[in-house]
Amino acid sequence: MIFQRIGSIFIYVCLNLIAHGFHAPRNLFNRRITVKMSLTQSPSLKKVIVLGGDGFCGWPTALHLSDIGHEVIIVDNLSRRKIDVELGCDSLTPIAAIQDRCNVWNSVSGKRIKFKYIDVATEYAELLQLLKDEKPDSVVHFAEQRAAPYSMRTPKSKRYTVDNNLSGTNNLLCAIVESELDIHVVHLGTMGVYGYGTSGGEIPEGYLDVLLPGGRPATILHPAYPGSIYHLTKCLDALTFQFYNKNDGIRVTDLHQGIVWGTNTLQTVRDERLINRFDYDGDYGTVLNRFLMQASLNIPLTVYGTGGQTRAFIHISDTARCIEIAINNPPAPGNVLTSLRLYVYTHAHMYVCLRFSLCSWKNNQMSLVLMPLS
Amino acid sequence: MIFQRIGSIFIYVCLNLIAHGFHAPRNLFNRRITVKMSLTQSPSLKKVIVLGGDGFCGWPTALHLSDIGHEVIIVDNLSRRKIDVELGCDSLTPIAAIQDRCNVWNSVSGKRIKFKYIDVATEYAELLQLLKDEKPDSVVHFAEQRAAPYSMRTPKSKRYTVDNNLSGTNNLLCAIVESELDIHVVHLGTMGVYGYGTSGGEIPEGYLDVLLPGGRPATILHPAYPGSIYHLTKCLDALTFQFYNKNDGIRVTDLHQGIVWGTNTLQTVRDERLINRFDYDGDYGTVLNRFLMQASLNIPLTVYGTGGQTRAFIHISDTARCIEIAINNPPAPGNVLTSLRLYVYTHAHMYVCLRFSLCSWKNNQMSLVLMPLS
Repeated sequence: MIFQRIGSIFIYVCLNLIAHGFHAPRNLFNRRITVKMSLTQSPSLKKVIVLGGDGFCGWPTALHLSDIGHEVIIVDNLSRRKIDVELGCDSLTPIAAIQDRCNVWNSVSGKRIKFKYIDVATEYAELLQLLKDEKPDSVVHFAEQRAAPYSMRTPKSKRYTVDNNLSGTNNLLCAIVESELDIHVVHLGTMGVYGYGTSGGEIPEGYLDVLLPGGRPATILHPAYPGSIYHLTKCLDALTFQFYNKNDGIRVTDLHQGIVWGTNTLQTVRDERLINRFDYDGDYGTVLNRFLMQASLNIPLTVYGTGGQTRAFIHISDTARCIEIAINNPPAPGNVLTSLRLYVYTHAHMYVCLRFSLCSWKNNQMSLVLMPLS
Repeated sequence: MIFQRIGSIFIYVCLNLIAHGFHAPRNLFNRRITVKMSLTQSPSLKKVIVLGGDGFCGWPTALHLSDIGHEVIIVDNLSRRKIDVELGCDSLTPIAAIQDRCNVWNSVSGKRIKFKYIDVATEYAELLQLLKDEKPDSVVHFAEQRAAPYSMRTPKSKRYTVDNNLSGTNNLLCAIVESELDIHVVHLGTMGVYGYGTSGGEIPEGYLDVLLPGGRPATILHPAYPGSIYHLTKCLDALTFQFYNKNDGIRVTDLHQGIVWGTNTLQTVRDERLINRFDYDGDYGTVLNRFLMQASLNIPLTVYGTGGQTRAFIHISDTARCIEIAINNPPAPGNVLTSLRLYVYTHAHMYVCLRFSLCSWKNNQMSLVLMPLS
């Protein structure tokens, strides 16, 4: 049913290739994830609010957290669906309404996910009241406009991205302070804050120790090289987290991941009404998805430049697992005036580094070759 | 007339002390300003829009620029006056309505300052149209909530400060890009972005060259140590300027100054209806002003801690001159992909460093001793 929309079995094969064929070798490159897996794996169950829990990352993460026993509340303003309307696009996969999604999950899993329709960037009072009512242990913050191309599309989309993303992050942190609750924030950043093509070396985790001119030691965030307004907002988020951690002791884990690929997870396949979204348009469709669609429609692949760019990729299942690990391992509470800051506010990036180097198109067949970085 | 409000001649003496007595020795500590004075001093006259031109820094700066021949347009949403209403405070000096201010200035000077009532944080279309209509050479950006105490007062004021300051800055830069005009932005930052009490050394200008772990060289903004939401927004501004400079070639000068003191300038004294505001409340009144008022009312001075904190101070006349110098010396246009970036986007701080160390109160007399840093 899903694939009737494009009338091609070819895309189905490719999707399976991505979902399964790439899944095994992916583990070959999972060094960073393996490191993180040594952290706590058998935690107490928690109450978790997932902001942006109806989105591409948010929905499978919410299901994953619910599946392993956490109590999950989804907060979303459904902006991603509204942007589909604005762009005249739609998910290739027919996603159910969020209310139906939750009902189906609650029915098939025996768990219970609640949904709250709140815009965290503009409805501060509602957000604060929810925190006070629910007293969550953790808030997972996905409630941001997440497409770099969309963020650069028009002055309106630039301004929306800055206003939405920054106000949302600040509202969340401000509300946590006002609630006087000790809530751990887990935020999804992006590898793009480090810049593309300029770093030229391993990216260390956490704060960096450098010497300023004059020989003064300083502990800094990794220098920010945002390549779009979207990436800029993630850099601004990082500074904002740093401030609220230092000033108010808010515990934050900021995960900088690469491009999230894949569609379904072990949870979303339990019922077709739980399926995750699949974007393939020029704004929200990432490179893998767009190439698949172009191939299936027998049109040239829009390879950028020589096709030799490198990007970090992570499967949606691993994104959900990373969030789980972060939730299970909150930074220790600490007096922010001590040297514990590094442990109170942590950065971590967990990614699979691949060279997306070869896309050939001949005889109506496409080969996508994902190669590990040497 | 001005001083009838507090019924004391004492404050008048103190104000004169600040306005004149401190004015001469101030030059003893003007090393950085002297350096900047070697820049172009006889420029072509320009069209300048002053955002926030009704405020404490904006008004005397607008008059100064007009006085030396630049064509000045003031843009303001009068938020500072509205916050007075909110706080139940008022300027000690009876400031005239902005329309009257402009009329009086145009009358006494023979120049012409126009006023536009626009909120740059929310009225993007109006801001863009103004840029297109007026085609200014420079925009001076003062349109930010500028009190650290106010920014930390309540969740509402925290959120207002972030939303207003970030949206305003992003709107301005976005509108300049959309206008396709080559407009130089001069922004007033704050010394506070460097943190207080933590730097321990000279603060270099411009970008800093550091080595990241692994021996990778990087050119970074000075590490940000904001001590309040207000200071945080200035750090976020800096990242935003860096992005728009790199991505769109926008030329920006970000001036990080210390606490601006003083009330009047050579221009504001020409007519009492041109007088600048004098704030002495707990939010907008800075330390000098508050001590003066406390002394005049015979109440204890609110010295913080031991009184041994150091801050950088700059007289309002010098703020206006710094802006003038920045306008006269825009960064060279450059291909942002070259190494010219440092010259395209400049940081500069011009300040007088003083130790504000002794405030004694006895026999109804107050001594304020400002000492140069050794």
